[in-house]
Amino acid sequence: MRAGRFITFEGPEGGGKTTQAKRLLTRLRDAGRDVLYTREPGGTPTGEAIREILQHDKAGEPLCDQTEVFLFAASRAQLVRRVILPALERGTVVVCDRFADSTTAYQGYGRGFSVEQMLAINAFAIDGAEPDVTLLLDLPIRMGFERVEGRQRQLFEDVDRIEREAREFHERVRNGYLELATRWPTRFRTIDATRTPDEVEQTVWEIVQGVLA
Amino acid sequence: MRAGRFITFEGPEGGGKTTQAKRLLTRLRDAGRDVLYTREPGGTPTGEAIREILQHDKAGEPLCDQTEVFLFAASRAQLVRRVILPALERGTVVVCDRFADSTTAYQGYGRGFSVEQMLAINAFAIDGAEPDVTLLLDLPIRMGFERVEGRQRQLFEDVDRIEREAREFHERVRNGYLELATRWPTRFRTIDATRTPDEVEQTVWEIVQGVLA
Repeated sequence: MRAGRFITFEGPEGGGKTTQAKRLLTRLRDAGRDVLYTREPGGTPTGEAIREILQHDKAGEPLCDQTEVFLFAASRAQLVRRVILPALERGTVVVCDRFADSTTAYQGYGRGFSVEQMLAINAFAIDGAEPDVTLLLDLPIRMGFERVEGRQRQLFEDVDRIEREAREFHERVRNGYLELATRWPTRFRTIDATRTPDEVEQTVWEIVQGVLA
Repeated sequence: MRAGRFITFEGPEGGGKTTQAKRLLTRLRDAGRDVLYTREPGGTPTGEAIREILQHDKAGEPLCDQTEVFLFAASRAQLVRRVILPALERGTVVVCDRFADSTTAYQGYGRGFSVEQMLAINAFAIDGAEPDVTLLLDLPIRMGFERVEGRQRQLFEDVDRIEREAREFHERVRNGYLELATRWPTRFRTIDATRTPDEVEQTVWEIVQGVLA
């Protein structure tokens, strides 16, 4: 049994993962817990260098999809061993906004790579550092789209074809998450994210209290 | 059937891979072939950025073994799609000094990671871009060590324990290669690298002529 607890947020866009992760951190701190918030890709010096490659094409060269998968996995492997596992050993509660399941949902179910290959790559990256609980903030894609602000939404709304493809992609991602939740029913908790942020926060806190107990 | 041919050199240290690759390139050019020599990690702008991370610890942070595996795989995935496959389509003969089998031999058999996991990672990285022939330059580890010049050899000779551990590691790598050759007997050709460079070159050329025919 690890001294700390490892909590991840997952789900489609617009489900409120970042909002809920921040609210949870506040609640945990108020309860006197040591907390750590991590992000991917990044979170370590090596991971930040990898993030730089992921976000800026080198000499105008597009990143191949497979290269992207491996760079995320490399950043994750480093984050797990250098940050997450040491924090858990110290008794810290680690909260991660997206983790390994995002690769399976987006690159596997969404983009169409073999789900089993994604799971194998994740298994090697995290080597047993499974989250104690994965909070899946689920909601219909249309509602998530309506919530997402800014450039991405503009893009979807500008062009019918892009919007339709994006919706189909995100539908596959959402269904992929729900399938993962069925596959690991102990680790996953599916939360109805169509409700108000306060209601979702309350559900999250009840689940986390159970995990901390 | 690809228009070009994909040839890789593999084997333990000191087997003469780089020497033989260069000699083969000369022979191929003299025979009027378009040739391409590639290296890993690197060979693309993205791959060179990854090579930089692999060779220089970021902010003094050591690279985890798993991170290293993924960074090699990321560089390889990019090299395959951006360089190797387009060259093969153009009819070029691609010669690679070490490729995916090095990961299986060194990280799998040598370092003790699951060989099946290494094969799964390679499969996703190269996605069917298997070499037409893999020239395994095999020789006893002791002889390879004696041939290797410079710092590495000094290190091994300085300290008995390091030498013994290094030998055991490289013995596992060598045996791993021989096992891979048994697993893919059509692709692999095991060449006795204890002979003179001229003799090895002649054998390499005979095999490659058969592959080009």
